[in-house]
Amino acid sequence: MITKQQMIQTLLPKPALPVKEQATAFSPANIALIKYWGKRDNELNLPVTSSLSMSLAHGTHTTVKVASADSCLLNGKECPPAFAKRLFDYCNLFRNKDTFFEIHTTNEIPTAAGFASSSSGFSALILALDDLFGWHADLKTLSILARLGSGSACRSLFSGFVEWHKGTRPDGLDSFAEPLNTSWPELQIEMLPISSSQKPIDSRSAMKITVETSPLYSSWPQTVANDLPRIKEAINSQNFHQLGQIAESNALAMHATMLASHPPILYFLPESIATMHHIWRLRNEGLPLYFTMDAGPNLKLLYLKKDSTLVHEALGL
Amino acid sequence: MITKQQMIQTLLPKPALPVKEQATAFSPANIALIKYWGKRDNELNLPVTSSLSMSLAHGTHTTVKVASADSCLLNGKECPPAFAKRLFDYCNLFRNKDTFFEIHTTNEIPTAAGFASSSSGFSALILALDDLFGWHADLKTLSILARLGSGSACRSLFSGFVEWHKGTRPDGLDSFAEPLNTSWPELQIEMLPISSSQKPIDSRSAMKITVETSPLYSSWPQTVANDLPRIKEAINSQNFHQLGQIAESNALAMHATMLASHPPILYFLPESIATMHHIWRLRNEGLPLYFTMDAGPNLKLLYLKKDSTLVHEALGL
Repeated sequence: MITKQQMIQTLLPKPALPVKEQATAFSPANIALIKYWGKRDNELNLPVTSSLSMSLAHGTHTTVKVASADSCLLNGKECPPAFAKRLFDYCNLFRNKDTFFEIHTTNEIPTAAGFASSSSGFSALILALDDLFGWHADLKTLSILARLGSGSACRSLFSGFVEWHKGTRPDGLDSFAEPLNTSWPELQIEMLPISSSQKPIDSRSAMKITVETSPLYSSWPQTVANDLPRIKEAINSQNFHQLGQIAESNALAMHATMLASHPPILYFLPESIATMHHIWRLRNEGLPLYFTMDAGPNLKLLYLKKDSTLVHEALGL
Repeated sequence: MITKQQMIQTLLPKPALPVKEQATAFSPANIALIKYWGKRDNELNLPVTSSLSMSLAHGTHTTVKVASADSCLLNGKECPPAFAKRLFDYCNLFRNKDTFFEIHTTNEIPTAAGFASSSSGFSALILALDDLFGWHADLKTLSILARLGSGSACRSLFSGFVEWHKGTRPDGLDSFAEPLNTSWPELQIEMLPISSSQKPIDSRSAMKITVETSPLYSSWPQTVANDLPRIKEAINSQNFHQLGQIAESNALAMHATMLASHPPILYFLPESIATMHHIWRLRNEGLPLYFTMDAGPNLKLLYLKKDSTLVHEALGL
């Protein structure tokens, strides 16, 4: 097995001292339209399938200051210990043992409620570290490094539509994200919060249980292989119905693989189901509205800017 | 393709006249613990997989009277036309064109709300026809004939635990149900009604859409192949936790295949989800309680008689 440390040695100079006192960076949150669900390598966060996301306007601001001891503030409050450990374990991959950090990180969206805050978090962190250590690494390299913190973080280095190529190499050097060369300003993605309470099971564990126990997971790679080229085609031709249909069905298929796990994993809350049925009714009545869902109870709406008022009225937003 | 008529010719004498004026029969409803989901032959109702059910105490009473024109009463009221057509199309397989029936059928449980009333309905009907025409057919033959009306009806010929062997022959003569030689009086199955409103999509159509469009359906046959011998083992050894776990997970896997269909098929209502989460919480607290679900929003509880009071109190029944 290849370790994170071995992989990093091939990409960066040996741990050196920071070249400045502090560095700040921002990364957008991203929402996958074709989901990342399942790892082929748990150490290097290598995915079973490719995935495709859209970056949001909001995300995470992170400042890393050189300090005399490690400390971490999340949204102005002390970090939960498990999260702080994950952050500093990640920092340890890049610093020598006499370097300590004070990290301030601010999420513009709730943590651990399926809003992909670890994606923008690890992406902003690697950008700040790049600046602090003066690596001047290219975005492909930073995408690979962000992936080591949280798989989907590799997609938060970019704005717009982003594809994470799964790659095939055991060392993961071909598993990184790249932006598509397409913009679609009419396309809106909007959080529809159902619950901001902590998820009953984190997505890393849920993914692992699904891969290991769900009899339906064996069909997931082919599902993505079918959906990915078709959604890129929809993006290129700006075909909203095709995009919405594929994104919604890909998300439901991901939740379906979890539902068949042992134990079953069900992120849906009663309000999630009520909202899905409501969206389907509205769509049957002619409103062009779709949704996607991540490992949490919340829905993310997909619609076109021209339908904004209609969508907001219909959902009481 | 083999037609129903061709198949029936190999099993029964040519259409003859009734040997009596009327006949009455009863069949129990049955609830599958290993689900029947997907046909390999839509004409003959041949299933992709085997399945296993438990018959209930309640079911359907059907009387067939020779009459001068066809008419049908369901629970004392005129049959919905679509249901009447399905019944008389089925009767046409067995009678000559000058024979007409007045059919009275009474379901002890709501129709078309996932309570498997078509199973007990077609089973009671074929039993009444057997008596009316004086075929004296054996139960294996009647199970095959009931299957032509509604797949799962082939299991309602028997009480207790019943296995429907999928068979492999194109004419379906090896696709019939048989009772297991085991009784387990402690095991309780109880309807937990969530909604008795008509389903948004009938299970025949839902099954067809799933088979044709769900990318996860390809994993379903292997899911059943794993679950079926293990639940029979649980029944033989009266291992309640093993039975409950397999039945619950098999039902969720079936719903999962539907969720990934195009369009998505979601029988869950908000109350279904709330009840699932509630049952899982109760189980985590130590209550031995599982559920299964068919193509509808209702849950069917699985528990042991000794826990009856606890289960009823916990769920406010």
